[in-house]
Amino acid sequence: MADKKKRVKVDSDSDDEYNSNRKSLPFKKRLKPDEEILSILKDLTESIQAKINTNKALTLADLQLSSSCREVTDLDLSSVQDEIERCILGITQSIMSGKGFAFDIPARSNTNQLYVPELDRIVLKDKTSLRHYANVATVRKTTITTRILQLIHQLCLKKIHVTKRDLFYTDVKLFQDQNQSDAVLDDVSCLLGCTRSSLNVVASEKGVVVGRIIFSDNGDMIDCTKMGMGGKAIPPNIDRVGDMESDALFILLVEKDAAYMRLAEDRFYNRFPCIIVTAKGQPDVATRLFLRKMKMELKLPVLALVDSDPYGLKILSVYGCGSKNMSYDSANLTTPDIKWLGVRPSDLDKYKIPEQCRLPMTEQDIKTGKDMLEEDFVKKNPGWVEELTLMVKTKQKAEIQALSTFGFQYLTEVYLPLKLQQQDWL
Amino acid sequence: MADKKKRVKVDSDSDDEYNSNRKSLPFKKRLKPDEEILSILKDLTESIQAKINTNKALTLADLQLSSSCREVTDLDLSSVQDEIERCILGITQSIMSGKGFAFDIPARSNTNQLYVPELDRIVLKDKTSLRHYANVATVRKTTITTRILQLIHQLCLKKIHVTKRDLFYTDVKLFQDQNQSDAVLDDVSCLLGCTRSSLNVVASEKGVVVGRIIFSDNGDMIDCTKMGMGGKAIPPNIDRVGDMESDALFILLVEKDAAYMRLAEDRFYNRFPCIIVTAKGQPDVATRLFLRKMKMELKLPVLALVDSDPYGLKILSVYGCGSKNMSYDSANLTTPDIKWLGVRPSDLDKYKIPEQCRLPMTEQDIKTGKDMLEEDFVKKNPGWVEELTLMVKTKQKAEIQALSTFGFQYLTEVYLPLKLQQQDWL
Repeated sequence: MADKKKRVKVDSDSDDEYNSNRKSLPFKKRLKPDEEILSILKDLTESIQAKINTNKALTLADLQLSSSCREVTDLDLSSVQDEIERCILGITQSIMSGKGFAFDIPARSNTNQLYVPELDRIVLKDKTSLRHYANVATVRKTTITTRILQLIHQLCLKKIHVTKRDLFYTDVKLFQDQNQSDAVLDDVSCLLGCTRSSLNVVASEKGVVVGRIIFSDNGDMIDCTKMGMGGKAIPPNIDRVGDMESDALFILLVEKDAAYMRLAEDRFYNRFPCIIVTAKGQPDVATRLFLRKMKMELKLPVLALVDSDPYGLKILSVYGCGSKNMSYDSANLTTPDIKWLGVRPSDLDKYKIPEQCRLPMTEQDIKTGKDMLEEDFVKKNPGWVEELTLMVKTKQKAEIQALSTFGFQYLTEVYLPLKLQQQDWL
Repeated sequence: MADKKKRVKVDSDSDDEYNSNRKSLPFKKRLKPDEEILSILKDLTESIQAKINTNKALTLADLQLSSSCREVTDLDLSSVQDEIERCILGITQSIMSGKGFAFDIPARSNTNQLYVPELDRIVLKDKTSLRHYANVATVRKTTITTRILQLIHQLCLKKIHVTKRDLFYTDVKLFQDQNQSDAVLDDVSCLLGCTRSSLNVVASEKGVVVGRIIFSDNGDMIDCTKMGMGGKAIPPNIDRVGDMESDALFILLVEKDAAYMRLAEDRFYNRFPCIIVTAKGQPDVATRLFLRKMKMELKLPVLALVDSDPYGLKILSVYGCGSKNMSYDSANLTTPDIKWLGVRPSDLDKYKIPEQCRLPMTEQDIKTGKDMLEEDFVKKNPGWVEELTLMVKTKQKAEIQALSTFGFQYLTEVYLPLKLQQQDWL
């Protein structure tokens, strides 16, 4: 009986192996030994580091653009405090000299935004508008602006971080609606010329990191190879993150947590030394700041694994070029030169993803895809245009998880190693 | 000039202090020295541990209920494999003996659910229904059930974890829609009598933990006092979590990540030794399993900090008594004896939360509140009934963040210490 049972097990196992081999064999047998793939990755890393070391990073100032642009920088707390005091002092002098009470607020609307191909990100042009206190149309916003400046000043003195929601609740009577305090908070960032994280107002964290990186979070040293499967939650306040060290060859940016989980459980970072990071969907500010900091300090290539749909590409573009809503802060939030590793529209046929694992694109998907084709940051990368055109033409999309059709570990055991071996990124 | 600037700073600071003191002084001055509060907490912890050690935990079997109930247990992988093989063997014998091919699936509908006050959780009664292969109405579901059993069997052999989404993608053609494979997955849990985590199918993780706990995640030792502000992401697979050690006096369960962040940055766990945990909103399975494991292994009181609205209480009840959807697994997912620390409806007046920081309840809120009043697990706690009745009567709700109106750190410096000192939990 025991024998029989054992045989049943072995049979069913080998049967599965057979089935998944039959489907995945054409790709599995193309895989070279890991050493060869590792040497490809080493070349990639070296070329990225050489590029970073020789090319001084371009800044807005280098470009001599026709329209001048506005960018914010990271400021320490005492500089933010100085800026606020300088701003208020200026207004006091304006009032005393009879010129009245007004803030000169940078415009953040679409028409004041510009995509700069040399920098590969969206920046804000220098249009501003006066926000007068002695004007019925703007008195409320002027009052809110003053109150936010006062609250930020308090944060500087107390040296603590708060969320936008906390900020709203300190004066609900005045703000009425969180949208109002949030919008003015962005105005204040632009006005003071500093990033929102410099204001010590942080977004909620949802990102996770695991793999070959050690860093300090609020004074504690974190070793992300020893974070089990759960990984380390990415800290909401990037200014308390530092001392990054890594022996990784690349950063693997993953859209979804299901794929992240597979990679973490299989400890993919031990086979191919890498740092695995995900924001679990839409990139949040904390994850974007963290990714940029890794890229800048460790000088590693970033390879992205997203769904093959317009939103996957959109997410990639938010990491890479910034969101329109926070274009004033694009220099600090974006990570240049992200490579699109997969899942790309051309992979669907190449890897023979079965028809039933592909999903038809909705009208909205197709519209989003066509809109993306018009975006400058897609246009400047011919490979991306080609892929996106194929997607819109075939009207098919697929999730990363579609690869599970060849077996649960196909992603980590065949797809990704082969992609790396073939240097198949754009 | 430097002098003048300094004076301006000091003035504005003391002015803020004055304002926030004026509002919070009545409560701040009631605070006793920390040692006295700590001794109150020690008493609480000891009483909880004494209760746990003397009262043997009640189980369904002890209760001799009129209707018999079904519960699932944690099984190790090889037991799950055995159960699947036993199930399939039974069906084979049924076919061979001419009785046909059918699964006897436990019903998971509302009418088959029962709240057991002695256990303080929802359980499943023992109604089942036959799922025949040779019946047009059920042939599809029978096929899906067989396929899911086969896939879980594979997971047992490979010893890996996957998500529900992965499972769906292994056979999109058959499952058609993820809802179908998800529902059958719950059926299979009931059928095999094991928890869903025993099946190695995990939910996505979103919880975070920080504070006085050390545990192992997939073999790595994690010290949560050294996790900075970001904290440790709660692992998706509880079966790889173990070796919990702690010198905490209680577990602080927090609904929202904004409050969590305040507590983590202020290192509240160092002033009052505790473990701080949040699922960032709706409790997910991983966080519920983790909370239960902490409570059971460390034998600590659990104090909950949620919004003062019907959903805050609902979240508390999901942690405490389980969700209807997974009632078959309530024994493993629920944490008994959670105390409602705050923010409670009576706190709004008691702590003089200003009118503008309270929000009017919507019709839907009021309906949810009234529905909750009819729930057994609310009814059995007279204090909760009183609070909820007050909420529905005043038609007012408030978020934890409303406390920011008295200063950003009011939560950690006044509200929580005072609550603990006054043993103000229900």
